[in-house]
Amino acid sequence: MLIVGELINTSRKAINELVEKRDGEGIKKIAIDQLEAGANYIDVNCGTQVFNEIETMEWLVNTVQEAVQAPLCLDSPNPQAIEAGLALARYGQPMINSITGEKERFEQILPLVLKYQAKIMALCMDDHGMPNTGTERMKVARALHGRLTEAGVPEENIYFDPLVKPISVGNNAGIEVLDTVDLITKEFPQVHKICGLSNISFGLPNRAVLNRLFMVLTMGRGMDGYILNPLDKTMMGFVYGAQALLAQDAFCMGYLTAHRKGMYQE
Amino acid sequence: MLIVGELINTSRKAINELVEKRDGEGIKKIAIDQLEAGANYIDVNCGTQVFNEIETMEWLVNTVQEAVQAPLCLDSPNPQAIEAGLALARYGQPMINSITGEKERFEQILPLVLKYQAKIMALCMDDHGMPNTGTERMKVARALHGRLTEAGVPEENIYFDPLVKPISVGNNAGIEVLDTVDLITKEFPQVHKICGLSNISFGLPNRAVLNRLFMVLTMGRGMDGYILNPLDKTMMGFVYGAQALLAQDAFCMGYLTAHRKGMYQE
Repeated sequence: MLIVGELINTSRKAINELVEKRDGEGIKKIAIDQLEAGANYIDVNCGTQVFNEIETMEWLVNTVQEAVQAPLCLDSPNPQAIEAGLALARYGQPMINSITGEKERFEQILPLVLKYQAKIMALCMDDHGMPNTGTERMKVARALHGRLTEAGVPEENIYFDPLVKPISVGNNAGIEVLDTVDLITKEFPQVHKICGLSNISFGLPNRAVLNRLFMVLTMGRGMDGYILNPLDKTMMGFVYGAQALLAQDAFCMGYLTAHRKGMYQE
Repeated sequence: MLIVGELINTSRKAINELVEKRDGEGIKKIAIDQLEAGANYIDVNCGTQVFNEIETMEWLVNTVQEAVQAPLCLDSPNPQAIEAGLALARYGQPMINSITGEKERFEQILPLVLKYQAKIMALCMDDHGMPNTGTERMKVARALHGRLTEAGVPEENIYFDPLVKPISVGNNAGIEVLDTVDLITKEFPQVHKICGLSNISFGLPNRAVLNRLFMVLTMGRGMDGYILNPLDKTMMGFVYGAQALLAQDAFCMGYLTAHRKGMYQE
């Protein structure tokens, strides 16, 4: 299981304020908290800082790494900002968020994946847009898999993101993601699957409940990575609980540790 | 989805006290509460009343039916007690809990299934005991399916129970149940799958959390029936949430109704 802590993102108001003030201690605290809460990677995204993104990315990467020796997930629409982060990332194998089947994006990001031997989130979309069904997503995944592995990217570095859409818009949005996970697992058992969760509940009440249940449902079908808020204790408690139920936690040790840390007291 | 409310069972101390006192109002309240909370069937089990089970079953069935016009699930190790209940059940199609592949039990229960055209819970066990793996359970299910359908039981009346064992005893206990559900669905798509949940968490802390997560995981693989405590609001909230996520709830109407009833306020 790979948990990418999503909090350091300037599209969040509180983070943007810390970044604008160059409040390094505030950023460091959020990095430390996410790691202690169970994140394996720290996402760094300052894509809203359009006029100053590269310098901001460099400051963020350096600041986070003063606090934690954790691998980073460099996240931007701008390949130059991603590379600025990659050049400074110094703990473990970096991750890039993300490549797609879109011609321009693919050609911009692939060289970075190869140069930095990074893990790569590969979104199931291309120049035809975001597909709806599992079968359509699988077509995009298959094409991406071919192009990435032919270029020399090892399968175990690839994390396919099926792209989660709201069930309030399309009733089948959830099961199409589950189908995609099944199809990818069957055809490419060595490749990973990752997703964000919050889109699933867009437009509905009690979003946190739906997001957590969708995480459990996708885990049950083989999803093995999430971009989420690890400070949501109930969510992380569900991760450990589901791992114990899915035989991914020998002797339930992870679950029992979570219990002793008080993660199930609400 | 078929929810069997499990509370009216004399192995529960509070119920046994009501039954011993012949406190009809107490029993009726529990029947009404379960139905209002979302149960479709009311389980009636007085198997601990070994010296007086038939008369107790008759009293319970009549008492429950004075309060609710709901179908009953007649539950006993004793076929005569089951028949005593069946003879009095008068709302909808009754259910029998349960038949197995054990020679004696099968021969005792089959005539009741046929006579009362009942739904039947069919446990995946036989005279060789309770199997561990999905494949072994499937063998028992296949044999039971053959004998039941040859006798004239319609497939849609059959609810296979894979039998849930504790993950604290065997790490794979959860995934073997999920595998069983997959195998049954693939071979007998018209047949239903049902289970109880509490065994999964035996011996571990925060049992309610694990029971609920295991329900979500099994729903995600196609389980469509549960014997549970419908007064566990969080559990029932998870049922409606998972249904919305699994495209079993058009326009999320069931989920939105649950929300309006306050099921997600903890």
